[in-house]
Amino acid sequence: MEKEIISQLIVKNDKKIIFLIMDGLGGLPQIPGGPTELEAAQTPNMDRLAAAGTCGLLDPVGYGITPGSGPAHFALFGYDPVTFNVGRGLLGAAGLDFAMAEADLYIRANFATMDKNGRITDRRAGRIPTEKNQELCALLQKKVALPSGRQAFFVTEKEHRALVALRGANLCEEIAETDPQKTGLPALNPAALSSRAEQTSADITDLIKQVNKTLAGEEKANTLLLRGYACYSRFPSFAERYGLNPLAIASYPMYRGIAHLLGMKVATLTNTIEEEIAVLRDNFNAYNFFFVHIKYTDSRGEDGKFAEKVKVIEKVDALLPEIYGLNPDVLIITGDHSTPAVMAGHSWHPVPVLLAAKTCRPDLSANFGERACITGGLGRLPMKNLMAVALAHAGKLQKFGA
Amino acid sequence: MEKEIISQLIVKNDKKIIFLIMDGLGGLPQIPGGPTELEAAQTPNMDRLAAAGTCGLLDPVGYGITPGSGPAHFALFGYDPVTFNVGRGLLGAAGLDFAMAEADLYIRANFATMDKNGRITDRRAGRIPTEKNQELCALLQKKVALPSGRQAFFVTEKEHRALVALRGANLCEEIAETDPQKTGLPALNPAALSSRAEQTSADITDLIKQVNKTLAGEEKANTLLLRGYACYSRFPSFAERYGLNPLAIASYPMYRGIAHLLGMKVATLTNTIEEEIAVLRDNFNAYNFFFVHIKYTDSRGEDGKFAEKVKVIEKVDALLPEIYGLNPDVLIITGDHSTPAVMAGHSWHPVPVLLAAKTCRPDLSANFGERACITGGLGRLPMKNLMAVALAHAGKLQKFGA
Repeated sequence: MEKEIISQLIVKNDKKIIFLIMDGLGGLPQIPGGPTELEAAQTPNMDRLAAAGTCGLLDPVGYGITPGSGPAHFALFGYDPVTFNVGRGLLGAAGLDFAMAEADLYIRANFATMDKNGRITDRRAGRIPTEKNQELCALLQKKVALPSGRQAFFVTEKEHRALVALRGANLCEEIAETDPQKTGLPALNPAALSSRAEQTSADITDLIKQVNKTLAGEEKANTLLLRGYACYSRFPSFAERYGLNPLAIASYPMYRGIAHLLGMKVATLTNTIEEEIAVLRDNFNAYNFFFVHIKYTDSRGEDGKFAEKVKVIEKVDALLPEIYGLNPDVLIITGDHSTPAVMAGHSWHPVPVLLAAKTCRPDLSANFGERACITGGLGRLPMKNLMAVALAHAGKLQKFGA
Repeated sequence: MEKEIISQLIVKNDKKIIFLIMDGLGGLPQIPGGPTELEAAQTPNMDRLAAAGTCGLLDPVGYGITPGSGPAHFALFGYDPVTFNVGRGLLGAAGLDFAMAEADLYIRANFATMDKNGRITDRRAGRIPTEKNQELCALLQKKVALPSGRQAFFVTEKEHRALVALRGANLCEEIAETDPQKTGLPALNPAALSSRAEQTSADITDLIKQVNKTLAGEEKANTLLLRGYACYSRFPSFAERYGLNPLAIASYPMYRGIAHLLGMKVATLTNTIEEEIAVLRDNFNAYNFFFVHIKYTDSRGEDGKFAEKVKVIEKVDALLPEIYGLNPDVLIITGDHSTPAVMAGHSWHPVPVLLAAKTCRPDLSANFGERACITGGLGRLPMKNLMAVALAHAGKLQKFGA
């Protein structure tokens, strides 16, 4: 309902919005009552922006719900994370810069090792090098042809991971996964889970036979395990929904994939935060929405490294003048979810957010941290509503009703 | 929507959750600007838990809505209080430990006094003693037989209050109440309010005739007034929805009834808070969710007795070490609604809540009270979402999406 209202109120202008997303930003204290990672970090620049701007706390999916990065990013971009809870196969395909077409079926594939009795002895084929994966995908691309005449694509992801894409009419994702999840068991059949899926199941059954035959001479990677089936239907894009011309700057496949799915232009691959900021600077005139994704806050949180997560936040803070020096009309600094180092994983805790714009109403938060955000003027809000607030502060939403 | 998500994310584990519910906890100052009952109470133990834990304010049904205890408790347990707004007849039946069966029709009945012209002269039959009520119910049980062949049960509640239960096919609750609500008027007809209810209406009309005939010789209790018709259909239980094994410790029929309806094991009747805590301690190993209900905060609020409500809160605080000494993984202290003594009744004001768990994020609330809860990290949230937060802190919810 709300999204329809927003789409109807859109006004196009040249004002620029930056979403600076520190993945897994939200945290917890290392010692009872102590500071969180963000509170422990020395962040004079963010603190100055927080004091002048408006802060708050975001719930990615709902109270108590720990989100994966996929749903959390959809929420950040104003797409309901439950409605748009898409399969990992689809995010994988989008992240590989594969030329996607409507109605394609995407499948996450692992190269694996199978013994002569058909039992899986290694579900990751000893983590074969990416080069070997590329060689085998090229071989399969040449040898495998589907009985139905549909096309099959084999695309290397990394190490033992690949994407299998099927293209043709009437593909259906309601197929059983073949990964037995344990070694010592044979692969499962890609059975049809609905009558609509029978023809797709027949194609995949034949595909596996051909794969096994083609890879029979391989010592490690002699089969493929399939899961995460997802058909692709085009998403309403940022241009359609918000009239925006967006650029995504992200170094990890999944985030690049989500940006692709939402019709963002995705910048060439970068490796460091400095490189990401350079790309932002170089492209600042050509777009009016920028998604800058910083992965390392989440990685250090997942590793359980409190002090190192603090350091990443401090590094981003030190680079921040280069970002607000570009004079964006709206600068939002937040995360997609919390990844407290003490939990070494994602959590349900709400995510601190900072909004800097000329039209901010001052609030009680004098620095950027979880406690301070409790007194922020944005209050506590569903993450999916943040996008509308950003658009409003950029003058991109007209009045509702007379 | 959210409830379906929660049910899909459930992980079973042995972690233990306690809901300590002080009925009608929320309050108002006795003098302008003064402390509320909870703020006036000396509660060193709750204050310590609040300082280390996370606080907030709960809206039982919605902004401005004063809830009955039924809807408020459904909300506490994560059941939407509007969807699950069940008839009082049903809550009464469940609270009486009556052996309920799917499709039964439950009716709240009052013994009343009727004059020779058929006018009601006392809607409560002079509050006859419970023993008299039992004697009359036994008599009616022997004498009354429905023309349709359906079964009728007469069950004593207390004083003039009883439960009438009908059992058989195609019963329908769409029947007019017979209580005229004023003395000097005749009882109303139990008219069918829909064509589906006609056969049920005929049975009840006949039942009343037989009741009046059977009780004709009684001085006070010579008729029954009927209201609160409710058919019983089984509720999704705590086990089904949350994978929990719950124990309810409550001394009042209605709360025991709600617990029954949600598939909780209901502990044997207790009379004091000390007895309730003893039951909690004795059963702590056998369950993983505990609903401990304390009625007296609400009773003193209803009576308009500020100082006495304060005393009940202080008594609970003094006993609190015995509860957290059990080392629950999640301890929630809250009420079902507000019952400010100055209003001598339920109110719409949000209810203070305190959550104590290892995974709490510290907030700005340094003690447990309505003002302090405004700066709590839980913020202000719909009461029905509290359950998901409790489950999350007990590690009972897995990640949503990839």
